[in-house]
Amino acid sequence: MTDETYMKLALDLARTAEGHTSPNPIVGAVCVKDGQIVGTGMHVRAGTPHAEVHALTMAGAQAQNADLYVTLEPCAHTGKTPPCTDTIIKSGIRRVFIASLDPNPAVNGNGIRLLRAAGIEVILAICTKEADFSNRAYFHFIKHGTPYITLKAATSLDGRLATHTGDSKWITSSHARSDVHTLRHTHDAILVGVNTILQDNPFLTTRLPHGGKNPIRIILDRHLRTPQTANVIQDNAAETIIFTVGQDTLTNQFAKYPLVTVESIPPDVDYLHEVLKRLGKRGIMKLLVEGGSQVHSSFITAGLADELYLYVAPKLIGNGPSLFMDHGCTRIAEGKMLDILDMKTLHEDVRIHALFNKRGDD
Amino acid sequence: MTDETYMKLALDLARTAEGHTSPNPIVGAVCVKDGQIVGTGMHVRAGTPHAEVHALTMAGAQAQNADLYVTLEPCAHTGKTPPCTDTIIKSGIRRVFIASLDPNPAVNGNGIRLLRAAGIEVILAICTKEADFSNRAYFHFIKHGTPYITLKAATSLDGRLATHTGDSKWITSSHARSDVHTLRHTHDAILVGVNTILQDNPFLTTRLPHGGKNPIRIILDRHLRTPQTANVIQDNAAETIIFTVGQDTLTNQFAKYPLVTVESIPPDVDYLHEVLKRLGKRGIMKLLVEGGSQVHSSFITAGLADELYLYVAPKLIGNGPSLFMDHGCTRIAEGKMLDILDMKTLHEDVRIHALFNKRGDD
Repeated sequence: MTDETYMKLALDLARTAEGHTSPNPIVGAVCVKDGQIVGTGMHVRAGTPHAEVHALTMAGAQAQNADLYVTLEPCAHTGKTPPCTDTIIKSGIRRVFIASLDPNPAVNGNGIRLLRAAGIEVILAICTKEADFSNRAYFHFIKHGTPYITLKAATSLDGRLATHTGDSKWITSSHARSDVHTLRHTHDAILVGVNTILQDNPFLTTRLPHGGKNPIRIILDRHLRTPQTANVIQDNAAETIIFTVGQDTLTNQFAKYPLVTVESIPPDVDYLHEVLKRLGKRGIMKLLVEGGSQVHSSFITAGLADELYLYVAPKLIGNGPSLFMDHGCTRIAEGKMLDILDMKTLHEDVRIHALFNKRGDD
Repeated sequence: MTDETYMKLALDLARTAEGHTSPNPIVGAVCVKDGQIVGTGMHVRAGTPHAEVHALTMAGAQAQNADLYVTLEPCAHTGKTPPCTDTIIKSGIRRVFIASLDPNPAVNGNGIRLLRAAGIEVILAICTKEADFSNRAYFHFIKHGTPYITLKAATSLDGRLATHTGDSKWITSSHARSDVHTLRHTHDAILVGVNTILQDNPFLTTRLPHGGKNPIRIILDRHLRTPQTANVIQDNAAETIIFTVGQDTLTNQFAKYPLVTVESIPPDVDYLHEVLKRLGKRGIMKLLVEGGSQVHSSFITAGLADELYLYVAPKLIGNGPSLFMDHGCTRIAEGKMLDILDMKTLHEDVRIHALFNKRGDD
C-alpha cells in the first residue's frame, strides 16, 4: 500500500457524494495506523460532518500518531460545523496528506498553516490532479459564484437532436437514457428551454433502480409559456423554477403550486448570465443543461458551457436541429474546441464525455 | 497452441494483404507439424500464388502428415493459378482446417469435397465468424458483382463536414488524417463528387511512412466540370475515371492524359447503380467514398453504403453541411441504422467504425 493507494480510496469515497454536497466540495478521508486503515469517511451533505470527522470518529483512539489522507485541505473556519483542523489536532494525528488545496478564501492555506503550527507534518501533492478534477465544479463555483455547466445531448451519427419534424423519441437506446439518470443524480439542477417542456413534457426526475436525488428543475421561459398541466408543475417531485423576462404580474397562475417559483429577469440585463447568478445565489453548484437545440446553442455561443456528455446513436436521420445552431462560425479555426475525456459504448450507443477547452478564457 | 491460435495467425497474415488481392479474397495459411509451425503464407495479389501454395512450399517435405490451417476454402478450379486442392493433396497434408466457405460458384463446397475424396480429413468452423467478416467485401462482390462500399467522413461533434462557408481544412487532426491514408491503402478505389475536386483539389493518393498503394480515383461528375488543372488529372499517380452523363463528345479534352478515362452513363439509366456496375466489371471490390455531403447522402439514401468510418473532432462549428442531407426522414424510426464495430481515439479525435445495418435488405 502506498500513499497513492490510500488517497485513491479517499477519492473514491469522496466521489460517492458527487452532486450531493453543494455548495460544499466533495471530500474523502482515510486514517491509517501502522499500515492498517482504521478510519474512513466522506462528506455526505452540506451541514453534516466533514470527511475528516467521520474518519477520525471511526478511528477513535487509533488516531493517536496515525496518518490522515484527505482529498481537500481541511477547513480552518467555523461554518455549519466546527473547523476540521481543531478536530485533527485534538485527535493526535501525526501526519496529514492532502491532495487539493481549498481555494475558498476562508481556507486557502490556513488549514495547512494551523496543522503545521500544531506540530503536525503536512505532506502535499498526492493525487492532486485527480483530486482537483473531482472538485472542478466546486472550484468553478468558488471562483465565479455561478454553477459549473454540463451540457447533455443525444444525437444521431449525423449530429441531429431530432428529425426535421421534431421527433426525438428516442434517438438513443434505453441504456443510454438510464445513464442520463445517473447524471441527474449527481447534479443540483437540470435546465431546459420551454420548447422542451412544450414538445416532450418531461418529468426531469431521477429514475434509478435504487432511487436517486431529483435535481431542481429550471425552465428558461421568457414569455411564460409553460402550461400549468406540465409534468414538472404537477408532479411535486422536486422544486421547479421558471425564469421569465419582466412578467412579474403573471406569476400568480403558479402560486398554488408550493414547489413552483416564477422569477422575472429585468429586460435590461443579460438574461442567461442573470439566471446563472441567481442559481449561484441559491447554492446550485452543478447544473445539467438538457437542451433543446436553442438552449444548448446559447450556452455554447456565450462560452458558458464547461462540459459535455454527448450520447451518439448509430443512426442517420438527415435534416433536423443540431447541438449547435450558431451561424457565426465561418472558418473551422473559429469552432469551439473541446477535449475528450473518455468515451464508452452503452449497448448500441456511444457516450463521448468532453470538456470545453477554455484555455485562455479564464 | 490451439486450432484457434493457428487460425488466428492465418487470419493476421491474410489481413496484411487487405485491399490488394481484388477481385480475389484475402487468404492466409499456416502449416503445422508436430506442434511446430513449419509453413506460413498469404495471398498477396491476384495472379500470384495462393496462400496454401506459399505455406506448403515453405513447409516442403514437412508437409507430409501435417495439418494445414487456411482461412478460406481452398479453390478447386484453375483460374490464373492451378487449383489449390491439387497442391494440398500432392503435399501429403493429413488434415485441413477451414474457417470460411467460399461462395464463389467455382468453389462453393467443391474444395472440401475434393479434399475429402482424396482421404484428407477436413475440419470446419474454426474462427468462421472472424474469417467471414475479414472477407465481407469479397462475399459482397461475389453476390452482387459491385463494390463493397465504405463511407469515410470527418465531422465536428455537432455533425458538420464543413462550416457554412465550406471551410473544411482541417476538421480533424493530422493523426486522424494519417489514419485515412491506411484506409486508402486497403481499398481498390476512392470515389468523390466533383464538388470536392473543385473545392479542395485533393490528390486522393496514399501517403504513408512506408509508401502505399494509390487507389484508382473515381469522380462523379455528371456535367464534366472537372478542370484539366486538377491534381487528380495532372499528378499521374494513379488511374482517374470520371463518370459523366451523356457527354461522350467532350471526352477528348482528357485524351492526352493516359491515366484519365471519361465514361459516359446513358441518361435513361440509374446513374449511381450503373457506375457501381461498371466498377464491379473492372474488378473494383472495395470502394472508399470520401464525400462530400451530397455524394455521401446519395449513397446512404439509395441504401448502397455498407460501412462507415466517421472521424469526429472535438469541436463545435455550427451550421454547415452534414453527412446526411436527406429531407425524407420525419420520424426517428425511419433513420438509417448502423451497428458500431469499434471506436478509438486518434490523438484528440475519435474514430467510430460502424456497419450499416442491412438486416432484411439482402
